[in-house]
Amino acid sequence: MRAVDIIQKKRDGGVLSHEELRYFVKGVASGTLPDYQAAALLMAVYFRGMNREETVTLTTEMVDSGVRLDLSDIPGSKVDKHSTGGVGDKTSLVIAPLVAACGVRVPMMSGRGLGHTGGTLDKLESIPGFRTNLSIPEMKSALSAVGCALIGQTSEVAPADKKLYALRDVTGTIECIPLISASIMSKKIAEGVDGLVLDVKTGRGAFMKTVENARTLAETLVAIGKSSGVHTQAVITAQDCPLGRAIGNANEVIECLEVLKGRGPIDLIELCLDLSERMLLVAGAAGSRPEARAMCGKAIASGAALEKFRAVVERQGGDPRVVDDYGRLPLAPHQHAVKAPSAGFITLLDAGLLGRASVALGGGRDKGSWPRSGMRCSLAT
Amino acid sequence: MRAVDIIQKKRDGGVLSHEELRYFVKGVASGTLPDYQAAALLMAVYFRGMNREETVTLTTEMVDSGVRLDLSDIPGSKVDKHSTGGVGDKTSLVIAPLVAACGVRVPMMSGRGLGHTGGTLDKLESIPGFRTNLSIPEMKSALSAVGCALIGQTSEVAPADKKLYALRDVTGTIECIPLISASIMSKKIAEGVDGLVLDVKTGRGAFMKTVENARTLAETLVAIGKSSGVHTQAVITAQDCPLGRAIGNANEVIECLEVLKGRGPIDLIELCLDLSERMLLVAGAAGSRPEARAMCGKAIASGAALEKFRAVVERQGGDPRVVDDYGRLPLAPHQHAVKAPSAGFITLLDAGLLGRASVALGGGRDKGSWPRSGMRCSLAT
Repeated sequence: MRAVDIIQKKRDGGVLSHEELRYFVKGVASGTLPDYQAAALLMAVYFRGMNREETVTLTTEMVDSGVRLDLSDIPGSKVDKHSTGGVGDKTSLVIAPLVAACGVRVPMMSGRGLGHTGGTLDKLESIPGFRTNLSIPEMKSALSAVGCALIGQTSEVAPADKKLYALRDVTGTIECIPLISASIMSKKIAEGVDGLVLDVKTGRGAFMKTVENARTLAETLVAIGKSSGVHTQAVITAQDCPLGRAIGNANEVIECLEVLKGRGPIDLIELCLDLSERMLLVAGAAGSRPEARAMCGKAIASGAALEKFRAVVERQGGDPRVVDDYGRLPLAPHQHAVKAPSAGFITLLDAGLLGRASVALGGGRDKGSWPRSGMRCSLAT
Repeated sequence: MRAVDIIQKKRDGGVLSHEELRYFVKGVASGTLPDYQAAALLMAVYFRGMNREETVTLTTEMVDSGVRLDLSDIPGSKVDKHSTGGVGDKTSLVIAPLVAACGVRVPMMSGRGLGHTGGTLDKLESIPGFRTNLSIPEMKSALSAVGCALIGQTSEVAPADKKLYALRDVTGTIECIPLISASIMSKKIAEGVDGLVLDVKTGRGAFMKTVENARTLAETLVAIGKSSGVHTQAVITAQDCPLGRAIGNANEVIECLEVLKGRGPIDLIELCLDLSERMLLVAGAAGSRPEARAMCGKAIASGAALEKFRAVVERQGGDPRVVDDYGRLPLAPHQHAVKAPSAGFITLLDAGLLGRASVALGGGRDKGSWPRSGMRCSLAT
C-alpha cells in the first residue's frame, strides 16, 4: 500500500477502504507516514469529504491508536457531555456535579479553548490549585469516590487524534465535518462511557455557522456513537449571543456557582437543565424528561449539586473555599466599565466578536494567557 | 504572514498575492516552510487552481529561487524546445542538432522519464560515456563550440521547483495545470533562452488526456513565456499512439540517427520538422515556414545535422562511433518477437499501455533501470 495512492484516490472522490484508513491512522500514530502526506490527505478530505462508513472507520481506528478506558469496575452508567465550542459556554462546570448529584457518574474529559471559544480546562484552572491533569487511575478513583471527574485528555487516549489535530491546526483543515466528528468521537469513545449527550452549537459564535452544517455534524456524531455502542443524543443550540452574562475563565466559574446555588442567568440555567436531563435519560436514571427535570431541580434546591462541585474541587487539589468566597478567585487588576450612553434594549451581543475580544484580553489558551481577564454584562432591571 | 492563512485563503478560493506567493516559494526553497504546510497548499491549489497572474508570479518566484543563466556573451538567438512528455517521443535528439546545424544555438535542459513517459537524459545516457551533468560553464562552452548542448537541470536552476516537484510526486498533486506550467516554465526561463517552442501532448499516452486540458496548459505556458520576455509558441500534438516505431532508450537513439540520415518513420520526421521550423521562426533565423523547412531539409540532406549530433556526443564524452555503428549501443540480452497471428492492419497501439510496458521492462528511470530494454515495431510492407 502506498500513501500517494490513498491520497490520489480521495483526491479523485473515491471511498477509502478500512485497510487504507487503518494504514493512514497507524502511519500517523507511529510517525511512519510523513506529515506532508498526512497533510495532503487531510486537504483532499476537506474537499471531497468522507461518507458515513469512512468516518466511522476513521474514528474506530483513531480510538484503537490508544487505550480504550475500562470503567466496568465502577458500578452504574457512565455518561459524558460534549459541546462543539461556544462563547460563555460554561455548562460543563454545572452539569458534571449536577448529574453526579443525581447518582449518575460523569467521567468528563474536556479540552482547552480553541480559537475564539473558551475551554473547560482553562476555566477550572482559574480555581487556585485545581489540577486537570489527573492520571487515569486518579481519574477512576475520583469517579468512584466523588461521582465525577473533570480532566484533560491523557496521552493514552486517541494519540492519533492528538497528532492529526495539531496537523489540521496548521494546515487549514480544521473546518471539516468528518474530521471534526472523528476527533470528538474518538476521544469520547476511548473514555469508556455508556452514554453521551452532544451540544452542537450553531450561529455567529460557533464553528458551524449554519444550521445545515450543525445538523450534518450532529447526525454524523450520533451515527458514530451508535455504531460504537455508545448511547448518543445530540442537540443543536444557538450560539449567536454568548451564553449567560460572563465571559472569561474566573468570571465563568462564578456564574456556574450562581447556577448551582439556584440563581444565575436563565439561558444558562435552561441549557444546563436540558443537557443534564438528557444525560439522566441516556443513563437510564430517569424514565422521562419531567422526571429528569424534577431530579435536577431537587439536586439544586437541596444544595447537593453545589456540594458535589465543592467535592470535585477538593478532590482535584483546588481551593474549595471559592464556592463560598468568590474573592479567592483571581480578578483582573484593571477594570473598565462600558456604559450604555442611553437607556434601551440590547438586541444583540455578537458572540464571535466578544469571544475574540476575550482572547485579546488574555482569556484564551494562548501562551501567556491570563485567567483573570474577561467580561461581564450587567443589566439594570 | 502566516502559512496557515495563505493555505486557508487558497482553500476558500481566494487569489494569492505576490507577497503570499513569494513567502511560499522562499519558504520552500530555504526550508523554513514545513513540508506539511507546502503539501496542504499544493492540494488546495489542485482543487482551487490559480489564475493567470498567480501562475506567472509563482513561476517568476521559482525562477528567482535560483540563478537565471546569462547567455548574452554567446552571439545569436538561443532557443529551446520542451515536450510535456510522451511515449517514443525522441524529438529532442533530432531537433537540437538539426536546429544547431541551421545556425541557431540550442541550450537544451531536459528531464528524466516521468511515469510511463521516456526522458531525454535517459535516452542520451544509453550512449556509452555520454555525460548529461555538465556544469554551467561546460554547457556554455559546448554551446559556443558546437551550437547545442543537451544537459540535465543543474542545482543552480529553479531549486524551489526541484523541492516542490519532489513533494508533488508523493502528495498526489502532479496533475495540476498551474503547477505543471510553473514547473516547466521556471526551468526554461532560468535557462536564459530568447525563444521557446512547446509541444503539448494530448491523448491516451499523454498526461493531458483531453484536448481542452492540453489547450489550457498550452495557453498558460505561452502566457508565462510572453510575460517573461521569452518568445514562446506551443503546438498541441496527438499522443494516442507512440511516436515512431521504437520505445526504449537505446532503441530511440537509433531511430533518431535514422531520421538524421534522412530515413526513419514519417510521423517522427514530420513532428521533428514542424518543431524545428518553429524554433527557426522564433529565433528569427527564417522568415517563413517554407523557408524554415528548406533550411531543415538541407541540413539533413547535406549530413550537417548528423555531423552536429556526432559533435554533441563527442563534446559530452560519449562514443561518437555509435553514429555509424549501432552495435556499440547496448542491446537487450533477451529478445522476444510478438508476431501478428494473421495479416491485417494495425489500427491502434495504445501509447499509455506501451509506455507502462517499457517501464516494466526496465526502460524507465526507476532505480535499477536498464537502458537496453524497449520495444520495436516492425511492419512487413
